[in-house]
This record gives sequence, C-alpha cells and structure tokens, in this order.
Amino acid sequence: MEKAFSENTAGLRPSAIREIFKSLTDPSVISFAAGNPSPESFPVSDIKRFTDIILEENAASALQYGITEGFTPLRGAVLERNKRIFGIGRDYDTAIITSGGQQGIDLTAKVFCNRGDTVICEDPTFIGALNAFRAHGLNTKGVPMRDGGIDPDELESVIKSSHKPKLLYLIPTFQNPTGRTMPYETRKRALDIAKKHGLMILEDNPYGELRFSGEDIPTIKSMDDEGRVVYCSSFSKILSSGMRVGYVICDNETASKIAVCKQVNDVHTNLLFQMVCHKFLTEYDLDAHIAKIRELYKRKSALMLSCLDDIGDSRIEYTRPDGGLFIWAWLKDFGDHDGFIKKLAAKKLVVVPGRTFNCDEEKPSDGFRLNYSTPSDEQIIKGTEILKETLKEI
Amino acid sequence: MEKAFSENTAGLRPSAIREIFKSLTDPSVISFAAGNPSPESFPVSDIKRFTDIILEENAASALQYGITEGFTPLRGAVLERNKRIFGIGRDYDTAIITSGGQQGIDLTAKVFCNRGDTVICEDPTFIGALNAFRAHGLNTKGVPMRDGGIDPDELESVIKSSHKPKLLYLIPTFQNPTGRTMPYETRKRALDIAKKHGLMILEDNPYGELRFSGEDIPTIKSMDDEGRVVYCSSFSKILSSGMRVGYVICDNETASKIAVCKQVNDVHTNLLFQMVCHKFLTEYDLDAHIAKIRELYKRKSALMLSCLDDIGDSRIEYTRPDGGLFIWAWLKDFGDHDGFIKKLAAKKLVVVPGRTFNCDEEKPSDGFRLNYSTPSDEQIIKGTEILKETLKEI
Repeated sequence: MEKAFSENTAGLRPSAIREIFKSLTDPSVISFAAGNPSPESFPVSDIKRFTDIILEENAASALQYGITEGFTPLRGAVLERNKRIFGIGRDYDTAIITSGGQQGIDLTAKVFCNRGDTVICEDPTFIGALNAFRAHGLNTKGVPMRDGGIDPDELESVIKSSHKPKLLYLIPTFQNPTGRTMPYETRKRALDIAKKHGLMILEDNPYGELRFSGEDIPTIKSMDDEGRVVYCSSFSKILSSGMRVGYVICDNETASKIAVCKQVNDVHTNLLFQMVCHKFLTEYDLDAHIAKIRELYKRKSALMLSCLDDIGDSRIEYTRPDGGLFIWAWLKDFGDHDGFIKKLAAKKLVVVPGRTFNCDEEKPSDGFRLNYSTPSDEQIIKGTEILKETLKEI
Repeated sequence: MEKAFSENTAGLRPSAIREIFKSLTDPSVISFAAGNPSPESFPVSDIKRFTDIILEENAASALQYGITEGFTPLRGAVLERNKRIFGIGRDYDTAIITSGGQQGIDLTAKVFCNRGDTVICEDPTFIGALNAFRAHGLNTKGVPMRDGGIDPDELESVIKSSHKPKLLYLIPTFQNPTGRTMPYETRKRALDIAKKHGLMILEDNPYGELRFSGEDIPTIKSMDDEGRVVYCSSFSKILSSGMRVGYVICDNETASKIAVCKQVNDVHTNLLFQMVCHKFLTEYDLDAHIAKIRELYKRKSALMLSCLDDIGDSRIEYTRPDGGLFIWAWLKDFGDHDGFIKKLAAKKLVVVPGRTFNCDEEKPSDGFRLNYSTPSDEQIIKGTEILKETLKEI
C-alpha cells in the first residue's frame, strides 16, 4: 500500500554519516568519518564495578520506572559539576537528564519552535542537530564559519533576513565539524544579539571537557542572566556514548516543558546507567579520567596534524583544534570536490564530505571532516598517506 | 524573561499519573495508581550475569555508538519471537529497537501525522499515547469503551465525523486503563474499517504476553497483509521497565522513516541493554520466566477481585481482566466522582481518576484505574478496605 508520511518527515534522509558508519564492515577501510570517542576512553572496569554494585544493592529501583526528569541525585551532581567546571547554573536553573545530548537538542527545538520557524546555525554544523530541526519542519539558516568562528555582524544580518528566527544553535567549543572554538568576545556578542532579536540560544557543549591546549573560555550559558540559554551536554565523550546519557541545564520553566516532551518521548532515560553516571560523578576521580582522555586526544590530534603537515601541499588547509574530536580540512581552488572524496573512498579512506554539514545541503563545500579519536595511530598514518597520494593525482 | 513556547507544547501538562508517582514518598500511602510491573518480575540475577558477560567480552562495542535501527541480532530475535508467539512479521516487515514502547508511539505519530490531524483512540486510553499525540499538535477523538471494547459501527461513525483522521490507536489486549480485550471479530472489522477510510493502525501491545486466563486472540498485525499496522511493544513488562527497551515491527518503508526520526531523537537505544535483551531472547528460558509473571499477576488480580467482590456494594462495578496490569472500576449513578477520588486519597489510597485517560480531558468520567501488579498483597487488602469504607460514607 502507498503510505502518506507527514509533511515534516516525508523528505527526511538518514544522516550520511550514520549511513557511512553502517557500511564500514570492511576491516581494510580506514575511517576518519566517525564521531566516536576512542574505545580506550571507556572506563570499562569501573562501569562494570558500579553496575554490579547497583544491581546488588538497588536492583528493584534501577530496573523499575523512574522519574522523567532523571535520577534525582544525578541531577544534583550534574548541576554541581557544571557549576564548578563551567560556572553554569543560576538559582532558576535545573538539570534534566536526557537520552544523550541529541535528545536535548531535539526536545529543545520541539519546545520552542513551530513548523516554518528558522533555526540560525553555524555553517557548517552538527548534522544530528540539523536533521532534528528539519524533522520538526524548521528552516535552518547558516552563518558562515570563518577562521575565528562566526562573525557577529554576519550573525545579526542573517537573523534580520530570516523568516521567524526563533533559536540560535551554537557549538562554541571545539565545534563539530570544524574543531574551531568561538572567542570570548563573539560569545558575548552572540548572547547580546540573541537578546536584541528575541532568540533563545541552544548551546551544545559535548566536547567542552576535552581541551588539550589553550585556556578555557567561559560558556555562553555562564554569561546568561535571564534564562535565555538552554545548555546541552552528555557523558558520551567522557564515559560511554553507547549508554546514551546526556543532560540539559536550563531555567525551570523551560525544563518543565522539556520534561513533559520527554515523558511522551521515552518516559525516562535508562535508569541503571543514570545511577552509574551518578557514581562516576560522586565516587570516582572523573577529573583524572578526563585528564587521560585529553592526553590521548592531544597525542592523536598531534599525530594527525603532523602527518597532514608532512603532506606539504599548499592546496590543502586545515584547522588546528585545541580540543574535541575533529579537524576540518579544505581544498583551495579545487573544483571537483565530490570527486576527490570519492577517489579517497576508492583508496579505502573514508571522510565525511563537507556538504553533509551545510545548512543548505545543495550548497557545495570545499571541506571535509577528519576524526582522530577513533582510528588507530597506524590508521592515522596510513590514511593521511592516502590523502597525500590522492592529492598528487589531481 | 518571558518564554514563547511552541504552539504544540505550550498547553501541555505533565501526565497526572507520573505526577502522582512523584508524590508517593509517604510510605503509608497505598498506591493502586502505578502502571509499574512488580519488582518480583525482574530477573535481577540474570540481568547481572548477562551484563557482566557483555562487559567482559564485548565492552568496546557495548559502550560505543551503535546503529540507530538497533542491535542487529536483537532485531532478528525480536522478529523471530513475535512470529512464533503472535504470528507477526511478513516478508516486508522489520523490527526497529526503540527506547521503550513509548518512543514507538511518539515516532509513529511523528512519521504519519501533520499538526491538526486526528488520531482515533479507544476512550479511555493510555495517557502516554494521548499526550504524545497532543505534543505533535494532533487531535484525539475517542470511541467509547464498552463491555466488549469499542463498537465497530461507532468506530466508523467517529472516523467519518473526524477532521483528517490519520491514525487509529488501539491497545487490543488487556487495554490500559480498562483491562478489556478486544474480541477477534472487532479486531478484524477495525482493520477493514481502517483500510476503507485510509487510516494507519498503531497497535500497542505491551501486555500481550501477560495472559493469565482465557485463550490468546490474534493480534491485528497478524491479520495485516499490506503493511497498514505498526506494531509496538516492549520488554518493560517482562524484563525491566527502567532499562527502556522496546520495539516497533512494521513494513520496511515505515521503519526507515521511524529510524530517521529516531536518529535525530536519541541516535540509538542504550546498547548494553539491547545486548542484555538479546541474551534473554536467545540464551534464557524467557517463556518460563513469563509463565512465572503470569502466575504472579493471576494471583494478585484474583486477590484484588475477591476483595472487590467482598465490598458487596452494587454501586461499584469493575472489569475482570484476563491479563495485564489493570482493573477498571466505576461508580454507577454517583455524582461527585472527583470528590470520591479525593476522599480515597485523604484515607491514603491513591487511584488514577478516569478523566485522566479521556481523549477529552474536560469530559467527566465515572471510572478509575486500579493496578494490582505493584502493591503488596497486604496493600491490596488494606486498599480495598479503604474503598469499602469510603463507599459506605457516600
């Protein structure tokens, strides 16, 4: 029978990245395409230890329905940590535990935006957010990412020329896909501009704790004194992505709306793993663990950058991130960009084409995203050699 | 600052039940209000055993990002079990693992319905579904539940008088909140009527395996030969509700839409617990475990029914379910129904007022829902005594 799908979802396509991810079954293929944390970053034995303790001492609660807003002690611990690390959380703020950072993005859009509204985004930006916005029937309009991130004047002019701009979606720190970090002044101005034009800000900070060089820059949420910023983050990059535990920190009124939407979406997040996260925040030296992940990514990013530097071809440029998981590379003055990505794939190196991250998918891109957290050192070396060889051929 | 919430969510209220659930901190309160499975039904030691095995043998996969559609072996095992038990699954069908049955309901509505469309429901019905529909800006229109479930002619006339009816939401077996089971003939006619009027059917069957008397009746999905029925169920009532693992079985085209929406909603369901469920389906005698739960609920429902029978007041009537978690009770010819529920609460017996489950929340109800799976035997006896006392006072 013929199906009549909803207007919001009829045109949706699966994320190119997750489709690439699915097809990576050939072990000889080198993937710089993932957004996965390194498996070395999972504290497996402690996850097992905590899981065992919870199932021994508290199984009847851990396996039963829980409260939609999240495991109360975890909510408290999340607020406490974010206050300490990022200066986030005023009297009127609270934390809602979500099923990964993605759910925070999806529900924030649902809570604030009507079909046809516009979400202003960095361009390129995280595909999972773009597709979440599209699935609510929202327009996405991009502010070009430059060397120093978005330009505030450009941001304001994009807002002015947009139809019903409602939400400003930003990943200020180690942005996905570019690895760039928004300077303090831009953050401040972005908040002012959002205020001036009546937009809410969704600040997505999944990589914020993964800084391996330079100094921390205050989050936009820490500057927010009126509840304009909804802050999303998760445990995916510091404990485990597969467990799907994230959180939103925002004012109580917004939180209660998000909770109602979460209630009808998945009732609550896997309770045992909420309890596991709580133990990691309260009975474990999480800072020491994160310091190890930072060291690991510092080493892996330095290796990838040094391999890229060795290419010695002025036609390729790339960012030098201070943290996170990604390097953004682009080809200057080169026409057939899609052809280049295909050539790489034919040589068994998979990268994510820049177009994927564009607000307007039809718009060409000269960039592509490189991930250094998932591939082994050997794969980083071999993959960048494939890049070098392929550049020679064009 | 003043927030402008979206039209779909501005008027949403939290589910009365989950709010009741939150307030149940006084241990002297007896709750017949929950929809929780009995903690005795959780196979704790085997969950622990399987969790340990997975974290010992397969941690790097279990803690990493997974495929949106679900852990492939679990999808296969889910299809196999549902084929064997319920005759579900044609060549064109597949299974998507969801974060509880609730997510299946939410995403099916998102995939098929536009704001302003109508979902036709049994009336009263599951509040979690009603609120999910409302959060998509959908209208809900009810077909009255009678002794034998909905009347097919009434169903057809409700469809005919509805604005853009798109989806027919049914819980044919041990319905929530009434405990009633739809006869075979009604199921068949409901499918024919949906076909005639071009509606999709969402068949929600979370309690289907919990039959403790009478004979199984074929699911509507098993009669569906064209992919009109999306079938939702979960492991919440047979293994653990807190782990939030459910599934949808539907045709491939619909499944791929649901998967795209799930991708932007929570990426995928907690992977370790998907693997745990897979082990329960393939390395464990799940049928024997479910047989024990059936015995438990048979005993507990019989106890509650015998206590209700002992009340000996012709003004109260109630259903005698063949399975599931709920008994529906109602007061005949009694005006101040809300006052009665409040009187019960004052005597520390909490039940869910029927109005909560109405498609039109403003419409009064003479019923209330009683749950026998969560309270202890002692609480069942004491709670029904409170009911008896309170009836004497009115």
